[in-house]
Amino acid sequence: MSNLLEIPEVVGLDTKRSLVRIPPELDVPLTPRVRQLIDTPEFRRLSQVSQLGLVSLVYPAALHTRFEHCLGVYRLALLLLKRLAHDARFSESVRPEDAELFLATALLHDLGHWPFCHPIEDIHLPSVPHHELFANSFLLEGEIADVLRDDWAINPREVVALLSEKPRDRTSSLLASMLSGPIDIDKMDYLYRDSLHAGVPYGRNFDQQRLIGSLCLNESGDGLAITDKGKTAAELMVFARYVMFSEVYWHHGVRSATAMLQRAFFLLHGELDLDGLFRQSEREMVETLCRAAGDSPAGDLLAGLFGARRRLYKRLAQFSYFEEPETYNRLAGRPYPWLAACAEHFASVVSTVLGRVVAPHEVLFDAPPVAREVEFHVDIYYAKEDRYRPLKAVSPVVRSLAQEQFDDYVKRVRIFAHPRLAESLRELPRLPDLLAQAVDRMG
Amino acid sequence: MSNLLEIPEVVGLDTKRSLVRIPPELDVPLTPRVRQLIDTPEFRRLSQVSQLGLVSLVYPAALHTRFEHCLGVYRLALLLLKRLAHDARFSESVRPEDAELFLATALLHDLGHWPFCHPIEDIHLPSVPHHELFANSFLLEGEIADVLRDDWAINPREVVALLSEKPRDRTSSLLASMLSGPIDIDKMDYLYRDSLHAGVPYGRNFDQQRLIGSLCLNESGDGLAITDKGKTAAELMVFARYVMFSEVYWHHGVRSATAMLQRAFFLLHGELDLDGLFRQSEREMVETLCRAAGDSPAGDLLAGLFGARRRLYKRLAQFSYFEEPETYNRLAGRPYPWLAACAEHFASVVSTVLGRVVAPHEVLFDAPPVAREVEFHVDIYYAKEDRYRPLKAVSPVVRSLAQEQFDDYVKRVRIFAHPRLAESLRELPRLPDLLAQAVDRMG
Amino acid sequence: MSNLLEIPEVVGLDTKRSLVRIPPELDVPLTPRVRQLIDTPEFRRLSQVSQLGLVSLVYPAALHTRFEHCLGVYRLALLLLKRLAHDARFSESVRPEDAELFLATALLHDLGHWPFCHPIEDIHLPSVPHHELFANSFLLEGEIADVLRDDWAINPREVVALLSEKPRDRTSSLLASMLSGPIDIDKMDYLYRDSLHAGVPYGRNFDQQRLIGSLCLNESGDGLAITDKGKTAAELMVFARYVMFSEVYWHHGVRSATAMLQRAFFLLHGELDLDGLFRQSEREMVETLCRAAGDSPAGDLLAGLFGARRRLYKRLAQFSYFEEPETYNRLAGRPYPWLAACAEHFASVVSTVLGRVVAPHEVLFDAPPVAREVEFHVDIYYAKEDRYRPLKAVSPVVRSLAQEQFDDYVKRVRIFAHPRLAESLRELPRLPDLLAQAVDRMG
Amino acid sequence: MSNLLEIPEVVGLDTKRSLVRIPPELDVPLTPRVRQLIDTPEFRRLSQVSQLGLVSLVYPAALHTRFEHCLGVYRLALLLLKRLAHDARFSESVRPEDAELFLATALLHDLGHWPFCHPIEDIHLPSVPHHELFANSFLLEGEIADVLRDDWAINPREVVALLSEKPRDRTSSLLASMLSGPIDIDKMDYLYRDSLHAGVPYGRNFDQQRLIGSLCLNESGDGLAITDKGKTAAELMVFARYVMFSEVYWHHGVRSATAMLQRAFFLLHGELDLDGLFRQSEREMVETLCRAAGDSPAGDLLAGLFGARRRLYKRLAQFSYFEEPETYNRLAGRPYPWLAACAEHFASVVSTVLGRVVAPHEVLFDAPPVAREVEFHVDIYYAKEDRYRPLKAVSPVVRSLAQEQFDDYVKRVRIFAHPRLAESLRELPRLPDLLAQAVDRMG
Repeated sequence: MSNLLEIPEVVGLDTKRSLVRIPPELDVPLTPRVRQLIDTPEFRRLSQVSQLGLVSLVYPAALHTRFEHCLGVYRLALLLLKRLAHDARFSESVRPEDAELFLATALLHDLGHWPFCHPIEDIHLPSVPHHELFANSFLLEGEIADVLRDDWAINPREVVALLSEKPRDRTSSLLASMLSGPIDIDKMDYLYRDSLHAGVPYGRNFDQQRLIGSLCLNESGDGLAITDKGKTAAELMVFARYVMFSEVYWHHGVRSATAMLQRAFFLLHGELDLDGLFRQSEREMVETLCRAAGDSPAGDLLAGLFGARRRLYKRLAQFSYFEEPETYNRLAGRPYPWLAACAEHFASVVSTVLGRVVAPHEVLFDAPPVAREVEFHVDIYYAKEDRYRPLKAVSPVVRSLAQEQFDDYVKRVRIFAHPRLAESLRELPRLPDLLAQAVDRMG
Repeated sequence: MSNLLEIPEVVGLDTKRSLVRIPPELDVPLTPRVRQLIDTPEFRRLSQVSQLGLVSLVYPAALHTRFEHCLGVYRLALLLLKRLAHDARFSESVRPEDAELFLATALLHDLGHWPFCHPIEDIHLPSVPHHELFANSFLLEGEIADVLRDDWAINPREVVALLSEKPRDRTSSLLASMLSGPIDIDKMDYLYRDSLHAGVPYGRNFDQQRLIGSLCLNESGDGLAITDKGKTAAELMVFARYVMFSEVYWHHGVRSATAMLQRAFFLLHGELDLDGLFRQSEREMVETLCRAAGDSPAGDLLAGLFGARRRLYKRLAQFSYFEEPETYNRLAGRPYPWLAACAEHFASVVSTVLGRVVAPHEVLFDAPPVAREVEFHVDIYYAKEDRYRPLKAVSPVVRSLAQEQFDDYVKRVRIFAHPRLAESLRELPRLPDLLAQAVDRMG
Repeated sequence: MSNLLEIPEVVGLDTKRSLVRIPPELDVPLTPRVRQLIDTPEFRRLSQVSQLGLVSLVYPAALHTRFEHCLGVYRLALLLLKRLAHDARFSESVRPEDAELFLATALLHDLGHWPFCHPIEDIHLPSVPHHELFANSFLLEGEIADVLRDDWAINPREVVALLSEKPRDRTSSLLASMLSGPIDIDKMDYLYRDSLHAGVPYGRNFDQQRLIGSLCLNESGDGLAITDKGKTAAELMVFARYVMFSEVYWHHGVRSATAMLQRAFFLLHGELDLDGLFRQSEREMVETLCRAAGDSPAGDLLAGLFGARRRLYKRLAQFSYFEEPETYNRLAGRPYPWLAACAEHFASVVSTVLGRVVAPHEVLFDAPPVAREVEFHVDIYYAKEDRYRPLKAVSPVVRSLAQEQFDDYVKRVRIFAHPRLAESLRELPRLPDLLAQAVDRMG
Repeated sequence: MSNLLEIPEVVGLDTKRSLVRIPPELDVPLTPRVRQLIDTPEFRRLSQVSQLGLVSLVYPAALHTRFEHCLGVYRLALLLLKRLAHDARFSESVRPEDAELFLATALLHDLGHWPFCHPIEDIHLPSVPHHELFANSFLLEGEIADVLRDDWAINPREVVALLSEKPRDRTSSLLASMLSGPIDIDKMDYLYRDSLHAGVPYGRNFDQQRLIGSLCLNESGDGLAITDKGKTAAELMVFARYVMFSEVYWHHGVRSATAMLQRAFFLLHGELDLDGLFRQSEREMVETLCRAAGDSPAGDLLAGLFGARRRLYKRLAQFSYFEEPETYNRLAGRPYPWLAACAEHFASVVSTVLGRVVAPHEVLFDAPPVAREVEFHVDIYYAKEDRYRPLKAVSPVVRSLAQEQFDDYVKRVRIFAHPRLAESLRELPRLPDLLAQAVDRMG
């Protein structure tokens, strides 16, 4: 039997000696060296960073932390190893020490995430590091590095490499794709977990058991593929992801909150010590931002999000790719500073029309970024014919999700306005014209 | 408040006085007049007819009956009424007596189903009645008719009309579409229930609560539409249906059993009293068929399905629309007698090649029928713009499911062979050529 | 690592190669030699025998078969082995060949069950064999015996011994207790499965995962114990069992049907070929019984259960141990012939009082048998103190369930009457006196 | 039909117009006047107060807030009203305005809860207000009071009265018991919700649907009773509560954290502005406490709970009522200051024995309070006999839970010690003697 099955953490799945419980009724086995990692201050910090940030302003129970998510991902890493240990090609390619590196990395994969990480990264400010690079400082220094070296016999550099560097060989490539790829343990956990805590069924719709049971290696052995028995399970996961984007991550209320935070951060970032800020807990970061903002426009925006009274901007209009392609195309994929400036022009335009002051930060433009969300480059393996085919080639539904629905249908261009203005702005007769005017001014 | 809410059965949802339990932990409220209906011999018969017939040869727990399904559909009818009672247009259009007709019809909608109804109907034999017409004899005569008249003040003709006649007005059309339409209570129950009993998650993936909560009337008021809040719930249901077809209803093992039963029935049907047969319970029908078949080829086929030893034909080859369009197109959509004759030619061809007797019934051809499965003509209602748009227009994923994936990807042309032959036949080098030869012989 | 983990069926839990699905979304791994067993006619017969028999007259979806249950028990056997393989004392005591015997026996444990086995056995007729002995003929002869010898290298006698003989050593005793003991895989499966199919939550309330995770050996090594971490899980299971008895197995409607079947069988049994009867499928047995009964009183009783119209006897009165101890004690624990004779006296007594014929079989007495249901002799192991204590000693709740609630509170003495009589009988002013009269006549 | 069914919030259950989602997939209907309440700063504050406080140090996902819980309780209030609207006695006794008061009070019932409320109240310091009285300031002043008056036509005094005053009539008594009584909506929600977020099945084991469906009025009409159909559902809820105490609320790790917080608060409370403190969010309170504590012993305790590194005190010994009654009885039910002083004596005793400084705060005594947890004074209504009987009289299992298991078996006397000391202390040979010495010193 494969010696991957003798890794203590994998054994722990069955012995169930030392466990921690996370929803939905999952036992996560802890060995002493796993405990060492999760008891470091760097890892504990993840228990003060929520997974979904502003989503809880719309789904009030979505408060789960990156700490919980990391435990979930680590458990899936164990399940994957246990399953693939029975795959001859995997067992040949992955030694126990590789598998242990994979486990530790799975546990630590979110170490560099700071609060509200994704909305902030989406602004693409030069002074903001990429969270994967930011993680390096946590991984290469301090206690985590010590535990990796002393208790896991792992060089911390290896973890950094697996997380954020170009794989140097087939095995690294394979392990990296299990952490981040078309079918990876990160997505498998967060879709489920986000769905559970938000209280919606969507992200739990895929058949995790079947999906894991049908994983195999791709033709070149540098990534995962899925046997044909798992094809619909894979389609279900792609679909689950679409629905979660549609109903949760890109929910218009969530996007309103996101637009508010982005604008506030954009206004404040020059005055902030970002490196210090990104090491804070979520609560601390909120306090730091509010303190820095004071009574400024940024302060007004932050108060609506984090103040005693929740006050989200209202949706004034939205434009989708397939219904209003022209407007959509003028705004989608623009750099954030352009969008912000354009919104300010718009504020000034409507100010005039309304005959009433509309402050520059009281209108926000939200638009899909350039980077498309979804590429499903995974192969289906037909064992009877011993042949691999791209999922997209055998699944029109995945094809249409990947090519159209995901980015073009879910993500919209939206205009949000301060609640005190929303009603009067909504009644303006020529909103599209005024919008066009503002865009024209951008030259 | 709408007087639809005072219908005793609708009230029963909350008073929970007299209940019967069905999975998954659902209480179905029974009033005396509902009990009267379900205690008739005609309705009790449905407790001897399984919902999925031959599927239990592959999913051994899928033994649930049409009786259970009818209770489930009736409960959904109550939920729908309760929800739509709060919709002004619905309340205006549907009087309590219409709603009661709808309820009784929902409960009785499957009364004409005989065991293995769908596979038998799919052969399209002239002597086989359509199950909806067959239901008339149960509805118009005997106890059911009496109970409808005496306890429900319903003319049984009305039930027949609602089930199987062209709606004569908007209200009838609306109620008929709630029973059988793109989003109907029949599908909503069977997808869930079939999935539950088969032990798979697929048909439970849609968000029933959300779907019901977002129903409204379509523009012309003669059918249901869905508000934009329910759009993804509708997409989920379409997707759930696709997966159930893919993994359960058109599972290759299920299709093998179906092909075996179809061939046996095709061989026997001339000698059978179909009207009597179709009034039997499932067990009785199996016995009648086996008795009629005796030692004939039909008997051999039936023994593999219902005998002491389960012995399904093996899949020899399969051809999908998108991978082998040529072969697929030669066989898909053919009338059953043509397919049977072609399979017999094939048996004779391979008999010669193998140098070994292959009896005509030992090779079976299974091919998608002409009628396409899925048409999703349902509108999404955008309340803010007061505008209806076809689901397909706003959902690429539904479009590709409807146009491609469902019939062309799920349903395949398959060739099954008796297990004693399967191995040698699989090794024949020129199977496609031999198949072509057989088709050519059909002229 | 323990070589128990290399048994092919145990490996199959993770490789998931060849699977069969049962609710709730469980994959049961099948190896070729497992398939050989379940494809025998003797095992297939279990797919024609329902687990709960008459319960489906009250819970209409409770139609699951012993076939499904056996697959469920076999899967739990695998999980148990996998867990206990990590327990040093277990691994020392149980060799792979013992474990394989345990697996095969788990799969085959219900082979001797005939339809309606428990109600029939409860009559304690001398001509009725015990189902465990009856199983021997299936196990020692025919195909099952061949497969055991040829594919499993198991002497069929060993299976018989493990199922129904006094264990000859510690290891046998341990394995036997895992199949049938205070915490066994039979109960763990049927509580869950019966609950699922009935549509009630009760039998799914215990924490199976935790229970299995906390199993260990008892002090003497001849049975299972539970670590203190599993104490509440064990209490939950005991409680779940109580609730299932209370709400399902001893539901008054189920008891009415049971009393009807028992009386019919009691009336007919002299004329039946029991050995042949008990080898039939459920449907066949029903037909055989109905044919044998014809128009006799037994036929009348059977028609109410299995005829076109469901017609259960009505509850006339019930007496519980704690409220009417006197009446209860006069009837509980009596041999069936005594009860039947007493009911006939009662029929004659009320006949006179009513001035209207009450046939002897139109009144049925149902009373708890002598054998008490529940003894929870299982120890809790306190690892810190290395000490075993009986569950009852550390759990007042289990103590009161075992000593009082289970038999004395759930099981009642009940009098059922034909529906045509129930109303007039209920109005009789001195029912308890009339009952006393009937009992007095028994001398 | 009862006009209780026309209360807009009750109607909202079916119309599903404006909803907020909470786990597990529940839609909570919001009317404008409900939104007004939950958007006040006083109510929003509950989104910064966790339901279970220190439990998340052991169950890391148990982070749900009182905000979510209040929405859950409010939804159950709607379900209860909807159900009881069909009960004639309830409808006569409760007018729509009473029902609206009940709804608003259900939503606001936790308004006075401050972070870590229960552990702090358990110390019984004279300066700490009861949280129900503390709520008055939130209810009688500020926005909540305005909304109640203006949008609900409710005098805020009425809410205060319903929450914390002796009921002045039968109707008030009835409504109060629905909020807080043997079967109340507070417990029904928190058992479920705490269980869900902790990731354990225990608190979800009762049959909520059945329980609500079987509620009725007690004999005197001033409280709820349960029909006999709901008896096992009620037993299940009592049992669920026991298991939640056993496995979650009184988990030894949770008690260790609780003991640490209590000691820290006990040490600090003289220096704190309690009124201000109790108005803070959980994060703010933690910061205030840590700031006040500085480097003092209290600071050391708080750092273990809230610092960068989680460091809970270890269990040194535990004494249960049924195994070590003598030790148990000397410590259980003592006032907190007595316990704290006794622990300090113990610290000094062991300091001497160890020959090593043990600071007074490094040993903590945790003991069950005087107030017993559970009294199940609820009646079961036997409709056939028209008779009420106390649940305890008809349920031995509830009797033993109430009288023995709950307080005496679940709650233990425990001694916790700083991790740096735990090992050496555990090895002390005469721990019970040393303990006795410390108690003796208390005189």
